[in-house]
Amino acid sequence: MTLHAARAPLGRGRTSGFYADVRDHSRRLAEPLSDADATVQSMPDASPAKWHLAHTTWFFETMILKPHLAGYREFSPVFGYLFNSYYETLGARHPRPKRGMLTRPALDEIMAYRAHVDEAMERLLAEDPSEGVEELATLGCHHEQQHQELLLTDLLHLFAQSPLKPAYGDAGPALAPAAAAPEAGWLGFDGGVAEIGHDGAGFAYDCEGPRHQALIAPFRIADRLVTNGEWLAFMADGGYRSPLLWLADGWAKVCSEDWAAPLYWEQTDGVWRSMTLNGLQPVDPAAPVAHVSYFEADAFAAWAGKRLPTEQEWEHAAQAANVEPREGGDRIARLRPRPAGAGAGLKQAFGEVWQWTRSPFSPYPRFRPAPGAVGEYNGKFMCGQFVLRGSSLATPPGHARASYRNFFPPDKRWQFSGLRLAEDA
Amino acid sequence: MTLHAARAPLGRGRTSGFYADVRDHSRRLAEPLSDADATVQSMPDASPAKWHLAHTTWFFETMILKPHLAGYREFSPVFGYLFNSYYETLGARHPRPKRGMLTRPALDEIMAYRAHVDEAMERLLAEDPSEGVEELATLGCHHEQQHQELLLTDLLHLFAQSPLKPAYGDAGPALAPAAAAPEAGWLGFDGGVAEIGHDGAGFAYDCEGPRHQALIAPFRIADRLVTNGEWLAFMADGGYRSPLLWLADGWAKVCSEDWAAPLYWEQTDGVWRSMTLNGLQPVDPAAPVAHVSYFEADAFAAWAGKRLPTEQEWEHAAQAANVEPREGGDRIARLRPRPAGAGAGLKQAFGEVWQWTRSPFSPYPRFRPAPGAVGEYNGKFMCGQFVLRGSSLATPPGHARASYRNFFPPDKRWQFSGLRLAEDA
Amino acid sequence: MTLHAARAPLGRGRTSGFYADVRDHSRRLAEPLSDADATVQSMPDASPAKWHLAHTTWFFETMILKPHLAGYREFSPVFGYLFNSYYETLGARHPRPKRGMLTRPALDEIMAYRAHVDEAMERLLAEDPSEGVEELATLGCHHEQQHQELLLTDLLHLFAQSPLKPAYGDAGPALAPAAAAPEAGWLGFDGGVAEIGHDGAGFAYDCEGPRHQALIAPFRIADRLVTNGEWLAFMADGGYRSPLLWLADGWAKVCSEDWAAPLYWEQTDGVWRSMTLNGLQPVDPAAPVAHVSYFEADAFAAWAGKRLPTEQEWEHAAQAANVEPREGGDRIARLRPRPAGAGAGLKQAFGEVWQWTRSPFSPYPRFRPAPGAVGEYNGKFMCGQFVLRGSSLATPPGHARASYRNFFPPDKRWQFSGLRLAEDA
Amino acid sequence: MTLHAARAPLGRGRTSGFYADVRDHSRRLAEPLSDADATVQSMPDASPAKWHLAHTTWFFETMILKPHLAGYREFSPVFGYLFNSYYETLGARHPRPKRGMLTRPALDEIMAYRAHVDEAMERLLAEDPSEGVEELATLGCHHEQQHQELLLTDLLHLFAQSPLKPAYGDAGPALAPAAAAPEAGWLGFDGGVAEIGHDGAGFAYDCEGPRHQALIAPFRIADRLVTNGEWLAFMADGGYRSPLLWLADGWAKVCSEDWAAPLYWEQTDGVWRSMTLNGLQPVDPAAPVAHVSYFEADAFAAWAGKRLPTEQEWEHAAQAANVEPREGGDRIARLRPRPAGAGAGLKQAFGEVWQWTRSPFSPYPRFRPAPGAVGEYNGKFMCGQFVLRGSSLATPPGHARASYRNFFPPDKRWQFSGLRLAEDA
Repeated sequence: MTLHAARAPLGRGRTSGFYADVRDHSRRLAEPLSDADATVQSMPDASPAKWHLAHTTWFFETMILKPHLAGYREFSPVFGYLFNSYYETLGARHPRPKRGMLTRPALDEIMAYRAHVDEAMERLLAEDPSEGVEELATLGCHHEQQHQELLLTDLLHLFAQSPLKPAYGDAGPALAPAAAAPEAGWLGFDGGVAEIGHDGAGFAYDCEGPRHQALIAPFRIADRLVTNGEWLAFMADGGYRSPLLWLADGWAKVCSEDWAAPLYWEQTDGVWRSMTLNGLQPVDPAAPVAHVSYFEADAFAAWAGKRLPTEQEWEHAAQAANVEPREGGDRIARLRPRPAGAGAGLKQAFGEVWQWTRSPFSPYPRFRPAPGAVGEYNGKFMCGQFVLRGSSLATPPGHARASYRNFFPPDKRWQFSGLRLAEDA
Repeated sequence: MTLHAARAPLGRGRTSGFYADVRDHSRRLAEPLSDADATVQSMPDASPAKWHLAHTTWFFETMILKPHLAGYREFSPVFGYLFNSYYETLGARHPRPKRGMLTRPALDEIMAYRAHVDEAMERLLAEDPSEGVEELATLGCHHEQQHQELLLTDLLHLFAQSPLKPAYGDAGPALAPAAAAPEAGWLGFDGGVAEIGHDGAGFAYDCEGPRHQALIAPFRIADRLVTNGEWLAFMADGGYRSPLLWLADGWAKVCSEDWAAPLYWEQTDGVWRSMTLNGLQPVDPAAPVAHVSYFEADAFAAWAGKRLPTEQEWEHAAQAANVEPREGGDRIARLRPRPAGAGAGLKQAFGEVWQWTRSPFSPYPRFRPAPGAVGEYNGKFMCGQFVLRGSSLATPPGHARASYRNFFPPDKRWQFSGLRLAEDA
Repeated sequence: MTLHAARAPLGRGRTSGFYADVRDHSRRLAEPLSDADATVQSMPDASPAKWHLAHTTWFFETMILKPHLAGYREFSPVFGYLFNSYYETLGARHPRPKRGMLTRPALDEIMAYRAHVDEAMERLLAEDPSEGVEELATLGCHHEQQHQELLLTDLLHLFAQSPLKPAYGDAGPALAPAAAAPEAGWLGFDGGVAEIGHDGAGFAYDCEGPRHQALIAPFRIADRLVTNGEWLAFMADGGYRSPLLWLADGWAKVCSEDWAAPLYWEQTDGVWRSMTLNGLQPVDPAAPVAHVSYFEADAFAAWAGKRLPTEQEWEHAAQAANVEPREGGDRIARLRPRPAGAGAGLKQAFGEVWQWTRSPFSPYPRFRPAPGAVGEYNGKFMCGQFVLRGSSLATPPGHARASYRNFFPPDKRWQFSGLRLAEDA
Repeated sequence: MTLHAARAPLGRGRTSGFYADVRDHSRRLAEPLSDADATVQSMPDASPAKWHLAHTTWFFETMILKPHLAGYREFSPVFGYLFNSYYETLGARHPRPKRGMLTRPALDEIMAYRAHVDEAMERLLAEDPSEGVEELATLGCHHEQQHQELLLTDLLHLFAQSPLKPAYGDAGPALAPAAAAPEAGWLGFDGGVAEIGHDGAGFAYDCEGPRHQALIAPFRIADRLVTNGEWLAFMADGGYRSPLLWLADGWAKVCSEDWAAPLYWEQTDGVWRSMTLNGLQPVDPAAPVAHVSYFEADAFAAWAGKRLPTEQEWEHAAQAANVEPREGGDRIARLRPRPAGAGAGLKQAFGEVWQWTRSPFSPYPRFRPAPGAVGEYNGKFMCGQFVLRGSSLATPPGHARASYRNFFPPDKRWQFSGLRLAEDA
């Protein structure tokens, strides 16, 4: 997970409460975990829960407390080496694929580290901090929220490796059982110049800006997500055995990895089950499909005679459909949705699964990374990844927004990633 | 190299001459080669010269002669299996990494295969062929031109593996020795909506269209290519040792592959030499740098405080600068170059090295691949690759144009690939 | 670690005490470990401590309690899958490289599993068990002793991955600080026919027999182990940079892995330190070198102008030198040591480091694996491994003997493996 | 293929004729090959025919002509780099996996190199050469004979990669069509001390000595090779699907490589065919099975309830059975075959397929490699390989003998390798 350069703190005095809420949320996420659960790294792409808990704390200690709190006493001199993620500017670091070797410090000690930093942060934030400190603290909280999602994502991957298929516990987020999925509706949009990117009100990561104009051709976008039931139809129709549906690299992956269903699915006695944070559960045909790669999402869209939306289309539709109440629809003066059925709008945009777009993760026009370590930097990852929009059931409340750009390589499946269809109008 | 769906044949009666010219050019390219030179595959990305010569011939035989020339006698029943490149629609094929195992058929037999197909094609084209046949023949000729460039590119890679550093021979294209490179000039452009993509006059590949409007922000672009001399300055300044200049994946490659100079460069007694089609030659500081990856081009641009152009910027600048005489400048009514110095223009756009852009290879709005085998299909490769514009010294005369989209993965270096800088205005 | 087919139980009534001692030793070895310490797998060759503790228990449950204790209640139905090591006869099993994914069951639960099985085993052994049960129980105890050594070996590897270089704790076995090492003495032996292999008195693994005659040529063997000081001289003399000293495969490993010192050695400010069960410690020149591969041992011997002993030479010298009091010297009637200095003998044969021999691990004449799961089987590993003789500081007391055949592949270094020199006489 | 240190030249005056014969044989082996056939390297284990032809010539030039023929003019200064195989003592060399990149020098030029060296060698050998020169020339001839076999072995591997399945030509050695294979007979031998190793009469490689005594237990050995028909029975009985028959490393290979038949076998319409030097041919049930690895040979023996012989057993049986006329049976005074049926003897010992033994390739007692480059050195490969005895249809006439020790890693299958069974008596 990338560290994003900060923009727009919460405003004087509100940071302290935000900080407390975010930190407490992490603490509660850790509650169901044993020391061992929190230590093991199930693959190089994933990190141990303990590492997420410590790394986010290291951020506050390194970026804020050490430079800004006089007399701050560092918790441990080796933690800087252990819990730096990838900041080349911040010196040597423990190699990523070996994060799971750190049986010590134990989870208890990590929690003590958190308490130590929290005490200092709360002191600093209570003392009328500078705007720079509030800005960094806000950034640190959003950064921690990203890791909260990753903690759950990585934990699911770990538990899925165990033949015991353990459940994460009562704290695990889950989708409410869905009734039968309704027919997908299609929202139509005229072409034109739209405003894309974060408008500066509230926090955003650097890569969400600068806000700029984008030329969009007329398009339609589905008002709901693709479901497990639809995915089963794709599978039944030979979707995983039809090379012409796939990108060349995607087909190579299908063959080399024997992909035949989404990640975590397994079939026993004719019944499909999927590993979830609540353990192995029957696949619900009405729920959105999850844990599919970009390659799979793209092949599904080809099979359906549609395509994935661009990220601009997605953002524009989300703004127009008012799916994000705090973002006024009035900002998009020049491009308006076509008349659609009463009450129609972009459903399931947030809180279920991230939605692959066909947009490679590239810089917006005039994007420049922030200087220094904080700005090391989304730009660094602008190669070989695709943008996902929306948010998932594992995303902490309040973290996502319509301009949010998540991104992952096209072959990755351990994220809570699904899709929504689009087509030219 | 991909096969592109055809558009726009040459017009009645002109195809036959084009065909003869293109086929003769391949024959001359093969002249300096021994049977062994033409057989060996130096890496999975490359193909043997013999394979290029046969595969392009197979295209005419499979797509045109078999379906359209009554009584055509297939040269050999196994060639279909041997010389299909990647068409899933056209049945099983010899695995790409094993193309170099085919010591037989010998080069002589491949040349006989070519003569056999040429005789039939010439007969067919002389007989007032259908428009469909002319269209396919035109496509086949452009397809063969692509392979002519690859034949040279792959051969250079093969010869570079030999401690003997053999020269390809007198037929090898080379850059004329340059005088000292002039200071780079900067061409400035106002922002606005530009027309991008092929306009339909003459041949183009499917991915060059549909022609469409693109919104371009004000920018400046260098009027010449980055030189070897500038690259040496980048190296001397620690460019290959500074992680902050690099994309994360690029830096990983620098480390794992020990990149410290462009591909084919080697230093002996303090002198840098580079493997070329004329053998090992001293690096000319005034010549454009070649055989650099996207990662290197991007890092160089960061080091220079600039960036790579987008493909839209490149194409717009090329159109505006009239670097392509047969493309009228009048088509870009709404976006005009700022006044630039007399005689200024986009130099070295064609015929020296391909120029990396920062644009991932993605479909243009409303792009749809052509149906059938011919359209299997640029879309298949629209993932993980970056667009290069212009053309190189190895590109056959008449093959390139301003709308041409070449593409390669960001870590590849065996192409004749260099760069031109840009910046926001 | 292989399971060996049993021979020779302890004798009626003595098994119960042996069982209690062995099981208690494992329990004490686990005491310094946290749940996380006991869970992580540091490489595919190693297993988590928890796995060793459970697998040895599974052996008793599967081989003895289920078939032989009426009314025995299995602790958990999934443990058979989780803790089978490699018995193809005993059904599917959790893949070895994923043993570290089992964060659950927790260490506490494994200890409860142990207590459950111990209670049943003690009951069974107290009830006048059959000879077959005693034989299997004896085998299970020796099997557990092997895993006790591996538990420490694997734990050291795990802790060595941590930048914290943690110490295992007070329970960790260590060599007493040595005074300066004496000059090596040489024990000479005439050639002749010697009796080799276990003589049937007491327990042995199947591969230690059948006892048989071996023809041995006259030889000399060093009376002590090669020391760290001598290894430093080898290093200083360019031992790791001289291809002619190495086996071809060994030299390839030196180059690909950048070997320049024994495993776990690191040099800081000119001082060599080595990771041990007591944490990072200065290298003691008088102590025996440890954690060297067969390749290194062989290269060192070539450098020293000597060779490694065969396993027959080692065993014969150990018998003749009376280093194993319970093995009478009178058995070797036809081959006697040459007169050696008073008090001379094979020092450091046991309890410091295993000693590589030049003998590939092959079956003794007329060796046949035992039938059934118990005999699945040393023979299975009789390919590509070399025999080590003696025992190490991590070997449990009473486990080793002169006929014991340990074996590992020639490139492995994480064992407590060193060497003793020999030469033709 | 290793270079072995020489022993025992032919005797004054006879070397010249031997040299001429051997060199001419290579020339004839190259006749059916095109430049491309002779250039391509089908895998890192194999070498191009051109390389074999040049490397053997390089041996004579480097070891004999340069030091011993006054005024000798080196053919090309770069050939020393190109055609050194692995002599660390002789300087840098072209990397083995890149031998197939050398499209130049062409086959014609290699043949000219051979003629140049032959002319000089013949001059030197005609001029009353020193004993040292004759000894080296004899060694060089035997070395070339080894490469003659490898040339064919590697060529078969290359041709097997081609869908055309080309035949090598009329010069290709092949087994005569067999009648139905007779029942295997068993030759019985008493145990005792046997003389093993070359006795010094005539040429041998260093690893065939020193001749020494070996203690052999009573055994029986099959009088003929295992046939394709027997192998088909093994396959039909699930031999490739029964893990208990296999060494652990062998079973891993079966699974990872999907072994289900010997190398080069393929089944079409229920008929098994095998690639041979005469192209794809039906598998002959009466012919000896070929192209099986040690792992397969060992598993077959386990399935048959037998075992592979040790190399000492093989050599002893071959001596006793007088299968090598020029080696007198009188040398084995102390160990004699049991009475066997009239006319019995070890059939098919030479000239069909090499026979895997269960003996790892290890040094004989008191073996010491020869000093200098010539002795770099079988010892270097004495790790991880198994000994094969006899010879194959590809072995040049007169090259093999009863004491000959061929060796390959246990997973290799591209040699002409089969097996003969044995058992304890």
